[in-house]
Order: sequence, then structure tokens, then C-alpha cells
Amino acid sequence: MKKIKLTIEYDGTDYVGWQYQPKGSSLQDAVELALAQVLKHPVRIFSSGRTDAGVHARGMVAHFETEANLPLTAYREGVNSLLPSDIAIVAAEEVAADFHARYSARAKRYRYSFYLGEFRSPLAGRYSWQIKNSLDIEAMRKAAACLVGKHDFSAFRSTGCNAKTTVREMFSVEFKKHGRMLHFDILGSGFLRNMVRIMVGTLIEVGRGKRHYDEVGKLLNSGQRDLSGVTAPAQGLCLMQVWYQGDLSQWTADAKPCKSCQKSLDK
Amino acid sequence: MKKIKLTIEYDGTDYVGWQYQPKGSSLQDAVELALAQVLKHPVRIFSSGRTDAGVHARGMVAHFETEANLPLTAYREGVNSLLPSDIAIVAAEEVAADFHARYSARAKRYRYSFYLGEFRSPLAGRYSWQIKNSLDIEAMRKAAACLVGKHDFSAFRSTGCNAKTTVREMFSVEFKKHGRMLHFDILGSGFLRNMVRIMVGTLIEVGRGKRHYDEVGKLLNSGQRDLSGVTAPAQGLCLMQVWYQGDLSQWTADAKPCKSCQKSLDK
Repeated sequence: MKKIKLTIEYDGTDYVGWQYQPKGSSLQDAVELALAQVLKHPVRIFSSGRTDAGVHARGMVAHFETEANLPLTAYREGVNSLLPSDIAIVAAEEVAADFHARYSARAKRYRYSFYLGEFRSPLAGRYSWQIKNSLDIEAMRKAAACLVGKHDFSAFRSTGCNAKTTVREMFSVEFKKHGRMLHFDILGSGFLRNMVRIMVGTLIEVGRGKRHYDEVGKLLNSGQRDLSGVTAPAQGLCLMQVWYQGDLSQWTADAKPCKSCQKSLDK
Repeated sequence: MKKIKLTIEYDGTDYVGWQYQPKGSSLQDAVELALAQVLKHPVRIFSSGRTDAGVHARGMVAHFETEANLPLTAYREGVNSLLPSDIAIVAAEEVAADFHARYSARAKRYRYSFYLGEFRSPLAGRYSWQIKNSLDIEAMRKAAACLVGKHDFSAFRSTGCNAKTTVREMFSVEFKKHGRMLHFDILGSGFLRNMVRIMVGTLIEVGRGKRHYDEVGKLLNSGQRDLSGVTAPAQGLCLMQVWYQGDLSQWTADAKPCKSCQKSLDK
């Protein structure tokens, strides 16, 4: 029996989300269907987590087991040729039997993208949230800094979340501006349902001057979802990378983790 | 009678091109339809040129005339609220009676985007051409430099092109690399049908080592379309900006024209 780890990129616009739903197409369904054709047996894949309807991924990770003895190219080129154009396998590798896409994950990085402009942008709109107002990005940076560390994130999870524990550790948060695009990058040990989108909805209120930046720390301590901001629209969110033991070099090639993150990895 | 100049951004994926076609939705149709609802009279818009099926625009320009006495916001916010999400009016201004979107244009800038990667990218694929091979970008730069200046571009136009003259002036060409994205920016006095896409199809052959860079200059002199490369796919092309008299500051805010371009404007 072989265990294969897949890294998957997708444009989530036309999907009901990662997980199977009674109505509509799910990303999991699409990948399992293409994979089964290549493997010539039904297959169940296990992902690092779910993404909601409309959320994108550059580096979703999932694993599956098979008795098939195919070369890894079959799971990249082969499966890609059967997948729709909005999904692609970008890496396939054989992993040890104790690897689990969800339970072995040590960190995940999400990016939320804003388009700062008076008029909606058809070319940016598919992958960002349009913000018309000018934003106080410095205040947003200060507010976001409060999120770093180990906290109970109850105030930033949707009512439908059924996670056993609400404590997560955020290793780094960063805002990056490129022209009219503003990116919010967050690296954490794990995320509750809708957590990044609720954080973003709250930080935007800080940027618009509707909340003082130090309210975010208080919110965190309150644990009350009804005190935090709206859930930001799905299309701005992208799961960038899931980080497993030994994958440090892969991550650092893309962006440098902050010092606290580095410490946490050294543990 | 007022003359209004519109700047239009669109994602051309789902359109048959700018111009009306017997079958399928055209961008011109969509804009005229929304505009007519706001003006409360049928309207014909005149564009700076056409874009082919699947080509995008960040700054298409078109003008129309009307007796209506509406504020300019009606042509931005008002029309935008009636347009589909893949088209938006990003600017509306009143212009002099002698302004013509096509005949007053002095320069246009196009961008062609490549995604350099072994696997197709669902997130980049909508707006780029995927190139699997590694490219000799320096050779492409040298080849592209031959295109600058006043030339007969017969070798770079599609057979369906019925332009009266095939002489155009290219002011600047530039390759810019950002991560896996490679952008080819070209600023010229005007472009023949499929000209940028045939240039790109030819330059890619230079990048892949299938042609020597000095062949491009010879090709230009030959005037023979059958000697140049394939027409690059539509989705990588975007009309960035159309440049009219007095618009220099608007242009320079975005990118600096090269010296030869500057000279030509000073004429």
C-alpha cells in the first residue's frame, strides 16, 4: 500500500467548497473522480482541511492510499488531463505511512486580498474584496499584531464551527501593498471555521476608523463572536500553503516566517 | 450635444470580442445596452479599436454622443450597476466635439502575460499563457528590441486584417518578470490585427531557442506572415491603456516611456 500526498491549486469560484455537498460540485468530488479514473479504483482523499464555497487555494494538501503501482507523473500530468481547467495537481509525492494531510499539518498560511479602488475591477474582482474607502493600513497592522501568539479564537469563528478546542497559535501576520492590491498574510498552527474571514471583516473596520486598533485584543479576550466584524467575502481568500515537518525550506523560499514562528518550529 | 469618453475594464473570457458578432455576446453590445438604459435612448459607442474574443482590457476607450444632461457619475456608478461583473466603467469624462476614441488616439499599450511553470495554474490561467519550457529571456529582449521604431508590420498581421497601411511605430518594448509571471509590455502608435499575439508567438520561439534573436529583424523586413510564429493564445493579452493628447502625465504615472517614445511625443 502506498500513501501519496497531493498539492492542489484551484479557483474556487464555481464550487460549493472543498467538501462534498448534496447540491453543487465540490472540489473533493472533482479530484476524487479524476483520480479514480487514473487509479482504476474508487478513492477517498483526506485533505488538510476544508475551504468554503468560493475560496481559492494555491497549495491545498490531501493524501490517499492505493495498491496501484503507478509513477508519480500519473498523479500530476495524468490526473491534470482529466481535471477541469480550474483545478490542477501541482505536486505529487510518496509519503510515509504515518503521514496524514490533516493531523500531520504544523502550520497553514492564508492570504486575503483586497482591491483598493473607487470602482469595481473586473480583472481583480475574481480574487479580491473591493474596498472603496481609503484605509488606515498602519492601524490595521497594529490591530493584526494582537492576533499573533497562542489565543482562544472563539470570537473569530462562525456559529457553525464544531472544533473541539478553540485555541490556536498565530505565528505571523503581515500586510503587503502592491499598487491597488493589499494582501493580508497570516501563518498559524490552524484555523477555526471562517476565522480568517472574520478577522479580515474586523480589521477592515479598524482600517475604516470604525474601531480603534486596540479593540481587537479586547475582542479576542471577550471570546464573543457577536462583537467581532462581518465575515469578509469568500473570493478574497486563498489557502497558500500547508506546512509539514521538514518542509521549512519550501516555506522559506516563498516568504520568511517571523521570529516567533521560527522559535515555534525549533521546539 | 455632449461627447462623453469612457474608460472600460473587462475580463474578456466569456465574450466573442469587443465588436458585435451575429453569435455570442460582445462587449460593445453589453456596454451599449447598459448605457441606453441610463440615457433612455439607443446609443452607439465608438471604440479606440477592437479586441478579439478572450482578450482583456484594463483601459479600453470609447466615446458616444448624447443630448441627455446627466452628471458623469451616471455613466460610472449608474452604468456599472447595470453591467455584468466582468465589465466596468472605470472613468467617464466630457470631451471636446472633435475628440474621437479611434482617430484621436496617439498610442496604445498592450501587455502579454506568461505563466512560467511545469503545471498549469488554475489561478493564473485565466490571464496568461502557460509556458513549460525554460525561456532565454535575454534573447527575447534582444529580438523584441528590433521591433522598436517605424516599420512595415505586414509579417505580424493576421490574414483577415484589412488595414489600409501596415506601417506602425513601436515606441517601447519591455519584459518584466515577477515570480512565475513574465509580462511583455509594448507601446505603439497602433496595432494591426493580431499583431501583438503574432509578435509574442514569434518571440517565444526565440526564447525556446528555435530561432536566433536576429531573425526577428529579418522577418520584419520580409513582410511575410508565413515566416513568423503562431498567434499566441488570447487570454494572455490585455489592452492596458490608450493614450491621447495631453494624457502624458496619466501615462507616466504608470510607467515611463522610453526615450524614442518621448521624442516622438515631442514632435
